[in-house]
Amino acid sequence: MQTRIEVGILGATGMVGQHFIKFLQGNPWFDLKWLGASDRSAGKKYKDAMTWHLAGGTPDSVAGLTVDECKPGNAPRLVFSAMDAGVATEIERAFAQAGHVVVSNSRNHRMEQDVPLLVPEINPDHLKLVPGQQRARGWKGQIVTNPNCSTIGLVMALGPLKQFGITKVIVTTMQAISGAGYPGVPSMDIMGNVIPFIGGEEEKMEMETQKILGDFAGDRIAPLAAKVSAHCNRVAVVDGHTETVSVEFSSKPSEPDLRQALESFRGLPQERNLPSAPPRPVIYMDAANRPQPRKDAERERGMAAFVGRLRVCHALDYKFVVLSHNTIRGAAGAAVLNAELMHSEGMLDS
Amino acid sequence: MQTRIEVGILGATGMVGQHFIKFLQGNPWFDLKWLGASDRSAGKKYKDAMTWHLAGGTPDSVAGLTVDECKPGNAPRLVFSAMDAGVATEIERAFAQAGHVVVSNSRNHRMEQDVPLLVPEINPDHLKLVPGQQRARGWKGQIVTNPNCSTIGLVMALGPLKQFGITKVIVTTMQAISGAGYPGVPSMDIMGNVIPFIGGEEEKMEMETQKILGDFAGDRIAPLAAKVSAHCNRVAVVDGHTETVSVEFSSKPSEPDLRQALESFRGLPQERNLPSAPPRPVIYMDAANRPQPRKDAERERGMAAFVGRLRVCHALDYKFVVLSHNTIRGAAGAAVLNAELMHSEGMLDS
Amino acid sequence: MQTRIEVGILGATGMVGQHFIKFLQGNPWFDLKWLGASDRSAGKKYKDAMTWHLAGGTPDSVAGLTVDECKPGNAPRLVFSAMDAGVATEIERAFAQAGHVVVSNSRNHRMEQDVPLLVPEINPDHLKLVPGQQRARGWKGQIVTNPNCSTIGLVMALGPLKQFGITKVIVTTMQAISGAGYPGVPSMDIMGNVIPFIGGEEEKMEMETQKILGDFAGDRIAPLAAKVSAHCNRVAVVDGHTETVSVEFSSKPSEPDLRQALESFRGLPQERNLPSAPPRPVIYMDAANRPQPRKDAERERGMAAFVGRLRVCHALDYKFVVLSHNTIRGAAGAAVLNAELMHSEGMLDS
Amino acid sequence: MQTRIEVGILGATGMVGQHFIKFLQGNPWFDLKWLGASDRSAGKKYKDAMTWHLAGGTPDSVAGLTVDECKPGNAPRLVFSAMDAGVATEIERAFAQAGHVVVSNSRNHRMEQDVPLLVPEINPDHLKLVPGQQRARGWKGQIVTNPNCSTIGLVMALGPLKQFGITKVIVTTMQAISGAGYPGVPSMDIMGNVIPFIGGEEEKMEMETQKILGDFAGDRIAPLAAKVSAHCNRVAVVDGHTETVSVEFSSKPSEPDLRQALESFRGLPQERNLPSAPPRPVIYMDAANRPQPRKDAERERGMAAFVGRLRVCHALDYKFVVLSHNTIRGAAGAAVLNAELMHSEGMLDS
Repeated sequence: MQTRIEVGILGATGMVGQHFIKFLQGNPWFDLKWLGASDRSAGKKYKDAMTWHLAGGTPDSVAGLTVDECKPGNAPRLVFSAMDAGVATEIERAFAQAGHVVVSNSRNHRMEQDVPLLVPEINPDHLKLVPGQQRARGWKGQIVTNPNCSTIGLVMALGPLKQFGITKVIVTTMQAISGAGYPGVPSMDIMGNVIPFIGGEEEKMEMETQKILGDFAGDRIAPLAAKVSAHCNRVAVVDGHTETVSVEFSSKPSEPDLRQALESFRGLPQERNLPSAPPRPVIYMDAANRPQPRKDAERERGMAAFVGRLRVCHALDYKFVVLSHNTIRGAAGAAVLNAELMHSEGMLDS
Repeated sequence: MQTRIEVGILGATGMVGQHFIKFLQGNPWFDLKWLGASDRSAGKKYKDAMTWHLAGGTPDSVAGLTVDECKPGNAPRLVFSAMDAGVATEIERAFAQAGHVVVSNSRNHRMEQDVPLLVPEINPDHLKLVPGQQRARGWKGQIVTNPNCSTIGLVMALGPLKQFGITKVIVTTMQAISGAGYPGVPSMDIMGNVIPFIGGEEEKMEMETQKILGDFAGDRIAPLAAKVSAHCNRVAVVDGHTETVSVEFSSKPSEPDLRQALESFRGLPQERNLPSAPPRPVIYMDAANRPQPRKDAERERGMAAFVGRLRVCHALDYKFVVLSHNTIRGAAGAAVLNAELMHSEGMLDS
Repeated sequence: MQTRIEVGILGATGMVGQHFIKFLQGNPWFDLKWLGASDRSAGKKYKDAMTWHLAGGTPDSVAGLTVDECKPGNAPRLVFSAMDAGVATEIERAFAQAGHVVVSNSRNHRMEQDVPLLVPEINPDHLKLVPGQQRARGWKGQIVTNPNCSTIGLVMALGPLKQFGITKVIVTTMQAISGAGYPGVPSMDIMGNVIPFIGGEEEKMEMETQKILGDFAGDRIAPLAAKVSAHCNRVAVVDGHTETVSVEFSSKPSEPDLRQALESFRGLPQERNLPSAPPRPVIYMDAANRPQPRKDAERERGMAAFVGRLRVCHALDYKFVVLSHNTIRGAAGAAVLNAELMHSEGMLDS
Repeated sequence: MQTRIEVGILGATGMVGQHFIKFLQGNPWFDLKWLGASDRSAGKKYKDAMTWHLAGGTPDSVAGLTVDECKPGNAPRLVFSAMDAGVATEIERAFAQAGHVVVSNSRNHRMEQDVPLLVPEINPDHLKLVPGQQRARGWKGQIVTNPNCSTIGLVMALGPLKQFGITKVIVTTMQAISGAGYPGVPSMDIMGNVIPFIGGEEEKMEMETQKILGDFAGDRIAPLAAKVSAHCNRVAVVDGHTETVSVEFSSKPSEPDLRQALESFRGLPQERNLPSAPPRPVIYMDAANRPQPRKDAERERGMAAFVGRLRVCHALDYKFVVLSHNTIRGAAGAAVLNAELMHSEGMLDS
């Protein structure tokens, strides 16, 4: 086994940080050695600095690590950012400025013109933004982001269909509570209930989808010229965002064309056999009532998008259901796969 | 107080039958005197013929009634049908043939050309189908139906907007478990889960919406020429179907136009002050995260549709959320209001 | 109708305060005219000072009231306290000192020797503590409390059985999330889960039960000499605490003795027909699988205790299940019934 | 790797059968080669004979197996029984008669005098009943059973404490819905609810506990002379039965004595390193609010019992919480571990 690359986590004590820790267990390329958090936690052993919220306990390999401040000094070159949006902007920039490769799950830099909003199977060429980013900002390091947890399932299903000329998309999400972190959604609000609103989520889904499916255009991304409309809802599910999607295509493909495109879809992560890549990024399920979050989200280590019920839409052209695991493929796993793609591109070599 | 009209229930022991019983308590016009059920139950006291599934207990006024067979003989002229689809066709016809007014919640006759699919606020003129129905079928009685529980919220929100020229509708439902009756949805299937499929539901929503919003055309209804597409899902909610809706209009109304149309909407039931009519059939909620099923569905005795989040849709024209109580306004309450409208039209006079 | 007594609420913006507001709607004796809350809310209209968390909306009669500071100055003589434990001690004392009758749901004064921990059906004579309280503390006013939401169901079931000589009680609770207020229990902690711990709850249940079932002994209560052991758990239920109870009796009653004692039990509130008194304080349910919180807690306006499954316990003598509504009979309704009893005793006459 | 022993499953299409299939994946000793089910399923491929209800899909290794009738003819010598109680008695006897080793999860034979009710860590010596069973019944085969899913957690916690002289036990269960199979508990009954009754469950828990903790007495088991009382409840949890337990001991041990006994407990399965044995059969959790079913039941592959909150009980002597995975340690995993113990004893050698 080759020497693993040391990595760190910014915002290691929060729920997203815990997901990073859990997902990185056993990663053959990355060795988690550094945990950064707020001043309040710095100096404590990790196990004493937080309450572990995930199923299973705190992994032994991190329980005894001493939490550091989120300052560039002692961190490894590659850091995953699980920071709250309230503080991520400045800290991520400071790390990039200081030469770190910041692979971030935070929303703060996603929509900046020179920052890749990366989904390795869909738009690996968006990494070409990085040299311009470094030039324009005078950074030796860089920031690369992954999409919002509700965007990822949608773009993984739409990516293989882009070839048919996507012109309109209407998506309704039924999002899991884990997407809101901890303490997150009060049980009094969601038990036996639906909350038909998640602040800022619809705008994120609409814009991120257009950027991710857009084309690299020299120093920026030309967003996909499709009209995208999102309805975002919170439902009483622990993990896994389910989405119903209606799509209009300019090329009027047949249903078998679409089905074939979904089922045969493979990307660079599959071609290069990246450690966290699912063998098939999109899994089409034949049963009439699938995919379902409690039963399917954790399949394929939570890294695939599950699509079902492809059929004609009487208002647009076709409609389907897509499910993805919001804290894995929609957060920690997404960022780790981003870093794996970057490593396979030689971008982590100092 | 005038003499109340005696009424009966076909299928009184099932869950929908129980909802009819509960909803009819205290009705000033209708006096529930007769309960029909399968041969297995006939001859027993009602309280011994079923297990009561609703919150609160079996009302005293029916607990001691003897259940009758579902044959026209002894039933009152007006019967509400809560029958399973598997048996409703023949029995409802037999009752209509024998001179009964059958106000049915069953789906069996809804889409027949000469049967009103009635929502009193929206299409009261569809009752004009009845004379033709009686003529064509040689019936002294009649069958009038109410829509599926997922259709009602949609059409109550779309009805006031019909004036703006509805051309496309895409709706995603998040439907409560009570819509599936008892035992209905196994808890192993829905706890912490979403089931993105309800057999036959999408087709019903699409066709029923076009019929209800259609125009009376002599001996039939000319369905609304809008394209309607439904995605139907089951979620872990007890009562109340929540729906996200995107709509395209030919007349390109402004958002205030739509808002005004929703808020000012009143129908015949309100004008005539029918006993089960909500004062306002559509209630617009201003809070960003409403309506919500657990918190709002039971307001207004469960008889109003609650709309919120009206805003621009980037793919069609506008979008919003609508909630309605599936077992009240979507079943028992719908049929009772239908009968009240019919009574106010003199259609129950023998 | 006689003139109603003006009343106020201390801590009116919190969830318990909202329950008081909701429960007081339509009370024939008490007229809610004053709302006290923290400095942050004071001066605002009530509807602008809080987010309403209960099903149904903010009652019109309070929506426009201006919230006042929690200082004795302008409040009516009778105030219900819904204050957080963190601030209740000083404020309640200040009100009692200034001549107010403080009928409190807060835990702060419950176990003080000269403060009645009152359940009107069970220990109305504990009100005899009040003169001593006033004397000892130099108060013109007074403080009277109601028990914790988990204690109330237990003592309402044990009260009628006290005559048989209770020597040991083991109770396991399955408590609703509404008992923890708002935001209260994070959904990530309770969805599809059981939390086998509620801080301080077991101690409260054990001590309060002994005090409530104890005897007035001049200037204090001699607690019941039974050994009481509580296991407290949080479950995924919105309203209604369910409890399994095993009891040992010194007099070895028969099962019919116990059943008869439960079913025939009536107290002073029933005798005096107090407005909020349930006709029967304990309702025995025969069905093998009842009582159940979602189906039964709201019966009898949430003011009764529902008991079922009385049977032999192989380890102690008998066992049963009891259910009570934690935010009504376990909080707001309990305090209002306390005040009604006090009014019927002439204790509210100034 | 040595040759694995071929095994079969009686009742392979039901939910318990599916749990057996899932649990046996990767077992180094047992090779699942045969699936028996009802006549209706016989002759079909497994994947066509059932609907798979567990998270993750039907394992490839069984999807293509042809289902056989439940007749001794073609089955391997060792069969696991996942049969419904309605049919298990005759079929299991027929298999034992015909020379099969029947390791059964069904309740039918558990309480028969000459049938071991086996928990390998607790009462491995109960296997000594087998020779007598074979003699008395004239069987070449044998039947060995595992306890009910609610009993297993209790006896795994009580087993290490038996040395202190258990005299009384009161247990309240909060049981997961998966314990009721499929379709099992209707969602209308359990969503946001507690059902304080499970038919026959309390009697099973009480008697099985006494038998398992009893002593081998020649041709039968002398049950433990402790008084055991169970309150059984269903709660809205998917997997994992949580139980609160109060215990009285004759030897009056100290709390550290009990804690030490729980934490140091190891049994034959651990000593012999059986493939499905958890390293520690009882895991004591220090956090005040653990164990919890959603967060802890799947740890240790679902094969350990998790104990927490050991403390003084004011009514008996001590009390604690125990959690175990009902479909793994309480069903499929229990039976497989039984078979592994039997193999380690040479009982599977023909």
